[in-house]
Amino acid sequence: MKTYKNISQSLLKSYSKLKQKKYRQSERRFLVEGVHLVEEVLNSDWEVEAIIINSKGFVKEVGQFGNWEAGNGVPMYECSEKDFNKLSDTVTSQGIVAVVKMKEYSAQNFWEQLPKHSILVALDEITDPGNVGTILRTCDWFDVDAAIVSDNSVDLFNPKVLRATMGAVFHFPILADLNLVSMLSHGKEHQFKIITTVLDSGNALNQFSFPDRSIIVLGNEARGVSESIKNLSDASITIPKYGKAESLNVAISCGIILNAARIVHH
Amino acid sequence: MKTYKNISQSLLKSYSKLKQKKYRQSERRFLVEGVHLVEEVLNSDWEVEAIIINSKGFVKEVGQFGNWEAGNGVPMYECSEKDFNKLSDTVTSQGIVAVVKMKEYSAQNFWEQLPKHSILVALDEITDPGNVGTILRTCDWFDVDAAIVSDNSVDLFNPKVLRATMGAVFHFPILADLNLVSMLSHGKEHQFKIITTVLDSGNALNQFSFPDRSIIVLGNEARGVSESIKNLSDASITIPKYGKAESLNVAISCGIILNAARIVHH
Repeated sequence: MKTYKNISQSLLKSYSKLKQKKYRQSERRFLVEGVHLVEEVLNSDWEVEAIIINSKGFVKEVGQFGNWEAGNGVPMYECSEKDFNKLSDTVTSQGIVAVVKMKEYSAQNFWEQLPKHSILVALDEITDPGNVGTILRTCDWFDVDAAIVSDNSVDLFNPKVLRATMGAVFHFPILADLNLVSMLSHGKEHQFKIITTVLDSGNALNQFSFPDRSIIVLGNEARGVSESIKNLSDASITIPKYGKAESLNVAISCGIILNAARIVHH
Repeated sequence: MKTYKNISQSLLKSYSKLKQKKYRQSERRFLVEGVHLVEEVLNSDWEVEAIIINSKGFVKEVGQFGNWEAGNGVPMYECSEKDFNKLSDTVTSQGIVAVVKMKEYSAQNFWEQLPKHSILVALDEITDPGNVGTILRTCDWFDVDAAIVSDNSVDLFNPKVLRATMGAVFHFPILADLNLVSMLSHGKEHQFKIITTVLDSGNALNQFSFPDRSIIVLGNEARGVSESIKNLSDASITIPKYGKAESLNVAISCGIILNAARIVHH
């Protein structure tokens, strides 16, 4: 059975800080936890700085990870269960965490590189980690060209968000922590139309023709799309309602809208 | 300011047992927590047995509830915060809980009463409370005629499920804790077609014509629809995939499918 280097207390301390948003933001790196997500990031073009395993819990369950070290040169460490818990966000951890460098997208190049026919999804103050993660997973399924997460939404690198993305975060460009009014204004300069989603009185989704370049804006769980964003809107859409529910969950709306948009765009 | 009867310790004890599934099942009643859900149940035709408020936390936040007692004759009690926590499932409670009798649907009458054009949704071993609740909320939006929750799915009256339904549970018939093979077999005797959802190689959703009487079956989060249910299937459908995500969240799938089904059915 393979053994790994013991992690030093100073390295452990610096990695454990990444559980807090402020350190993720200043150090531009974050933690990824669990077998599936660590596999996803290793199979992506994101840069993995280190992998840390719980010497007690890891080998037992996921022994097949032993060949990673040779394969891609990522330093692998082990530590005691007590130390591992300083890195872990889950109650029943799978005993594996990766330290990953954030991928930086330049807002300038970003717009230039998008194809003529593009669908983007923008998140306007979406605060529930499960919703943000599920929206990004859904965007990935429908192959949106990019997602934009506003600076007043939950942090993209929050462990609960990452978990709910099921790895989608490593599959397509996601620009996070941005001023959405400014980003959408840039989008409009690049011939994008801003399509806002509203609970009623918008264009009926199933008859709507999405423009060649569309940015679909999803709004806050309780208040919907904010006024400052509505001011930029070129069109609004509404998912037809038949029953009594007051609203649809925002991630559900995202799925329904993207499926409709793809019928047109493909 | 209005005051309410203090709840007796014996009543408190019997209500607090309803946090456990086994007591909900044997006593055929359950707890509903929070301002929105309690309002929903009071505005429905479900029978509310009692309302209990936290004497410390309730009046401050939701004083408008004081006129309920006169309005509908539901006994209202108050208790100390410590006692209230024996009923509450949430960390930051709104200080109001209702005790509600389960509505019993007869499986015989059930099939007879359904209109000629009906869409039903069946949940086959869906284990995440948030998923079950969000699916039912989505069913409510799209006005499905009824939902059927299998006995190996999470309990419908689990507080997390109820919260995620946003009240949908009180808006339309939901038959829970049932053997799904048996229920679907009865459905087939009543001219229902069983439409299962599969990750690939099913009929493309957006070209699919839903039969006049359809039961759409959603499967387990990890394993999909079970083999015993697939054996009853009349047709399978697949949501077209464009990107890299391995799967869609089951509640997202539900929303996309129901929107497509309604385009046909309305």
